[in-house]
Amino acid sequence: MSKAAVPVSQDTLAVGIDIGGTGTKFGIVDHDGNVLFSSGISTKKHKQVDTFIDELYDHLLELIEKVGGKSRIKGIGVGAPNGNYYTGTIEYAPNLPWKGIVPLAKLIQDKFQLPTVLTNDANAAAIGEMEYGAAKGMKDFIMITLGTGVGSGIVANGHLILGHDGFAGELGHTIIVPDGRLHPGTGKHGSLESYASATGVAFTAREILKKTKRKSSLRDVPKDELDSKSVYEAAIKGDKVAKEIFDFTGKILGLALANFVMFSSPEAVVLFGGLTKAGDLILNPTREHMEANLIQVFQNKVKILISHLKESDAAILGASALVWENQ
Amino acid sequence: MSKAAVPVSQDTLAVGIDIGGTGTKFGIVDHDGNVLFSSGISTKKHKQVDTFIDELYDHLLELIEKVGGKSRIKGIGVGAPNGNYYTGTIEYAPNLPWKGIVPLAKLIQDKFQLPTVLTNDANAAAIGEMEYGAAKGMKDFIMITLGTGVGSGIVANGHLILGHDGFAGELGHTIIVPDGRLHPGTGKHGSLESYASATGVAFTAREILKKTKRKSSLRDVPKDELDSKSVYEAAIKGDKVAKEIFDFTGKILGLALANFVMFSSPEAVVLFGGLTKAGDLILNPTREHMEANLIQVFQNKVKILISHLKESDAAILGASALVWENQ
Repeated sequence: MSKAAVPVSQDTLAVGIDIGGTGTKFGIVDHDGNVLFSSGISTKKHKQVDTFIDELYDHLLELIEKVGGKSRIKGIGVGAPNGNYYTGTIEYAPNLPWKGIVPLAKLIQDKFQLPTVLTNDANAAAIGEMEYGAAKGMKDFIMITLGTGVGSGIVANGHLILGHDGFAGELGHTIIVPDGRLHPGTGKHGSLESYASATGVAFTAREILKKTKRKSSLRDVPKDELDSKSVYEAAIKGDKVAKEIFDFTGKILGLALANFVMFSSPEAVVLFGGLTKAGDLILNPTREHMEANLIQVFQNKVKILISHLKESDAAILGASALVWENQ
Repeated sequence: MSKAAVPVSQDTLAVGIDIGGTGTKFGIVDHDGNVLFSSGISTKKHKQVDTFIDELYDHLLELIEKVGGKSRIKGIGVGAPNGNYYTGTIEYAPNLPWKGIVPLAKLIQDKFQLPTVLTNDANAAAIGEMEYGAAKGMKDFIMITLGTGVGSGIVANGHLILGHDGFAGELGHTIIVPDGRLHPGTGKHGSLESYASATGVAFTAREILKKTKRKSSLRDVPKDELDSKSVYEAAIKGDKVAKEIFDFTGKILGLALANFVMFSSPEAVVLFGGLTKAGDLILNPTREHMEANLIQVFQNKVKILISHLKESDAAILGASALVWENQ
C-alpha cells in the first residue's frame, strides 16, 4: 500500500519508521511534511528482531529506490515503545515481541548504512504534532496516544522531556486506580493503559456487560470484535451500556489528565488514536472528570484536542522529524 | 532570631523571602549561599495582605540596614504557594489567608523599591537544592516539600518546568487515592497532600488509632500534638501503631513518586520537611512502594534523597537564588 503523494524534487528526504505492538509503518518524507511513499509490515509475527530488520530492509529499500536511492536520504528516524533517544535502544517494551534491551538504532543503521535516531513512539508523535499538527506553535503540551497501548510525549518549554536516562513520559503506566485492573504486560495494577488502551476499553465492555442484565446490542458482538469502534457504533444508536463504557473510560482518563496537568501545566493535551474516533462520547466525560479533579488555578484553561493528522501519516511524520531535529 | 553567619563584604546581596501557610521567613544571602541575617513573621495572622507587607517591610528593613542599606541589595526573590514566575502573582492559594489573585511581587517591589521576582515556594526550594544542596549538579530531579502542605518543584534539562501559565508542579494536589480523603482547602478527594502533609499524617494517626483497639503510646498524646514528630518518637520506641502510620503514609507517597518518576524520569527525588525527620521509618516504605509501582525500565535507578540544607535556610536560599538567576 505505497502511494505517490507529490512530485519528487531533488531535496534530501527523511525516512520515518513507527514500530507498534502489532504493526510497523514506514515512509519517506520531504522537508514540508509530505509523506511521499509509505508501507508497512507486521511487528508481531517477528519473534526475533533480526528477521524483523531483514523484512523491514527489503520493503523500505523498494521505497528508497523509488525516490532515487540512498544518496537522497538524510537519515532514518524511528519511533518505538520504550525507545531511548540517548542510547538508541528499546528497553523492556511490554508490548513488543523482543524482550530485554534491543539496540535497534544500531541494527537499522548497520543494515541501511544511514544515520539513525530513535525515540519513544509517542515522543515522535508529539514532535509530529508540534511540527505539523494540533500543537503547532505550542511550547507546552502533552501528547497522549490511545492505541494498542497508551503512550505519551511531553513537551515543556518547546523541548521533549526525556529525563536523565531518556525514558521520561511513560504516562500510560502511571497508576490511576490503586489495586485496580491487572496489566498483563507489566504485572502492575490500575495503570492508565489498563483502562484507556484498545484492550482496556474491550475489557471494560466485557466487565460492564457481565455486571449488568440490561439489554445491549453489544451482546451480539463477537468477543474478539468488541473494541472502541463497535462500542462507538452502539453508543451513537443510543445503546446505554455502550455510553456507560465511554463514561467509565472518560472518568479514568479525565482523572489521569488532571494529574498530568498539575505536573507540567500544558496549554493543551493532544489525544490521538482509535478511542478519539468516539468524539464527544469520550471527550465529554474526559473533560468533565479532568476539570473536577483539577485545583482552581488550572480549571477551564487546558484544551483537550484531537489530533487531525492522518492516523497512518502522523507517526511516520513524527519519526521522520527526528532526522531534521538531529542535524 | 537574626544571626550573623559570616563577615559582611561589599558585594551585592540578595533577599530571599519564603511565604508559608503558617509563617514567613526571610533573610539576606550572599553569592556563596551564606544566609547573613534572617528573621520571620506570622503569615496566618494577617487576614489582609497589606498589613502583611507592612510588617514584612519593618522587619526586613532592619536586616537590610545591618548590611549597609538598600544600595547593597540586588533584588528580592520570593517563594510562595501558587506563586507565578511569569506574572508575579499568587493565585488561589488554598493554604494562605489571602484569596483570589494577589499581585505580591508588585506589592513588595513598590514597598521596597527593589526588583522582585516570585515563584512557587517549592520551585524556589528546588533551585536552592540545585545550587547548594542534594541536587547539586543534577539536571533532572523532582523536589517534594512535605510541610503544612505538600509542594513540588520539577527540574528537567536543568530548568524548572513552569508550564504555559507558570503554575506547573502542583504535585501535592495530584489524586493518588480516587474518592479518597477530602482536602478541606481544595474540596478534592484523595490528593497526595491529604496524606503526606503534616495534617495528613495527623489525620492518618487519628484514623488508625480509631480503627484499631491495639495499645499505643500515641493514645496518650493530646490530639493537637499528634504529628509526624510524636509519631516518630513513638515508632522508635517500638510502637507498632506508630510504625503502621508511617507504613501507610509511605505507601501513598511511594505510589505518588512512582507516577512522578514515570512522568519526567528524574535522577533523584529530593524530599524536604518535617516528615523526612522520621528517616528510614518513612523512607523504607516509600522506596518499597515506589519500586513496586514502577515499570521495569525505571526500577532501581531513582535515588530518594533527603535534603541536608538547614530547614530554616533552604527556602530562603532558594528564593534568593531567583535574584541571581534573574540577572
